[in-house]
Amino acid sequence: MNADKIPDIIIGRLPIYLRALQRMSEKGMKTTSSQELGEHVGISAAQIRKDISQFGEFGKQGTGYSIPFLMDKLREILNVNKMWDVAVVGAGDMGHALARYQGFKNRGFQVVMVFDNDASKIGQKVGDFVVEDTNKMVERIHAAKIKMAMITVPASAAQAVADRLVQAGVKAILNYAPVSINVPNDVHVQHIDPSTHLQRMTYYLD
Amino acid sequence: MNADKIPDIIIGRLPIYLRALQRMSEKGMKTTSSQELGEHVGISAAQIRKDISQFGEFGKQGTGYSIPFLMDKLREILNVNKMWDVAVVGAGDMGHALARYQGFKNRGFQVVMVFDNDASKIGQKVGDFVVEDTNKMVERIHAAKIKMAMITVPASAAQAVADRLVQAGVKAILNYAPVSINVPNDVHVQHIDPSTHLQRMTYYLD
Repeated sequence: MNADKIPDIIIGRLPIYLRALQRMSEKGMKTTSSQELGEHVGISAAQIRKDISQFGEFGKQGTGYSIPFLMDKLREILNVNKMWDVAVVGAGDMGHALARYQGFKNRGFQVVMVFDNDASKIGQKVGDFVVEDTNKMVERIHAAKIKMAMITVPASAAQAVADRLVQAGVKAILNYAPVSINVPNDVHVQHIDPSTHLQRMTYYLD
Repeated sequence: MNADKIPDIIIGRLPIYLRALQRMSEKGMKTTSSQELGEHVGISAAQIRKDISQFGEFGKQGTGYSIPFLMDKLREILNVNKMWDVAVVGAGDMGHALARYQGFKNRGFQVVMVFDNDASKIGQKVGDFVVEDTNKMVERIHAAKIKMAMITVPASAAQAVADRLVQAGVKAILNYAPVSINVPNDVHVQHIDPSTHLQRMTYYLD
């Protein structure tokens, strides 16, 4: 398995497969087929088989995939067979929501720090965290060796925050600000953009 | 152009192209090429040309695409050349964040109602809205002919809320709850799942 050889578009589908498998597992299912998985995620069975076979022979002709086994393999491939610490920058509504979000557990992530530059928010509790001063962000994140962060500041502040996260050693940023951010090539960015999801649905509406 | 003939995966890429074009436009750019657009969105130039050509001949060999023209066409195809009213269900942190989110303007969406079942929240202001009682949700959404909604309630309540939204005539749901929801075939669902985005990045981290 060579990371450089697997197209990014395939990597992007693996978390979707893993999520579907986790839901099947929660329902008590033990095995599945590429057909069944395909129906859950809206991707063809042939594509799923092709994607998964990039990493090895994880299924059996006739009996399909063992759900726990395939989940383990996908977790291993995606590096989420361990817990990643994540910093949240911006203690507004979205920062609060993420600090308290129940959907990170069992997916490999835990929020460990929340930052804001607003004096009225610094020192306040957000979920289990005390909001820390962004002035200490670079130092704190670097010392804790945190590699992932979520940006929930206003659009106008997002690039400056991203620059400081990069300086602190962060290598993966989930950006909730409605603006694009520029980072060095070795830093990964994903953008949460509800409008894009809504537009994907309006196509089908009258 | 026949909606039934365009694969969903292509439709899913159009909002991403539109977002990139809007950013280019905000920077003052007037024209672009499939190569340049491809670099912005991480999709091959050939794929972009193929996707866009499904809907007509919008570019010119040699000069590329007019950004305002292609934006207009994509908005028309995606049905966002008008404003869609959206209801938010759940006036917690995420509901607050969405009610105040600045990223809907110029994308074709406006939040018009916010609902919650918590007596301490009903009647409170969230952004420009007064939180309304979910008991009146079906009636209110139906009367206002609202077709889109965002669910930001806890996982345990999401399915019941979705059922009532469907009853009210909603045809497109953006689900922020960390759980899958079942809806009839004529209702569209998209799921905002930060863990999936984070997992897409951990693959590349050590």
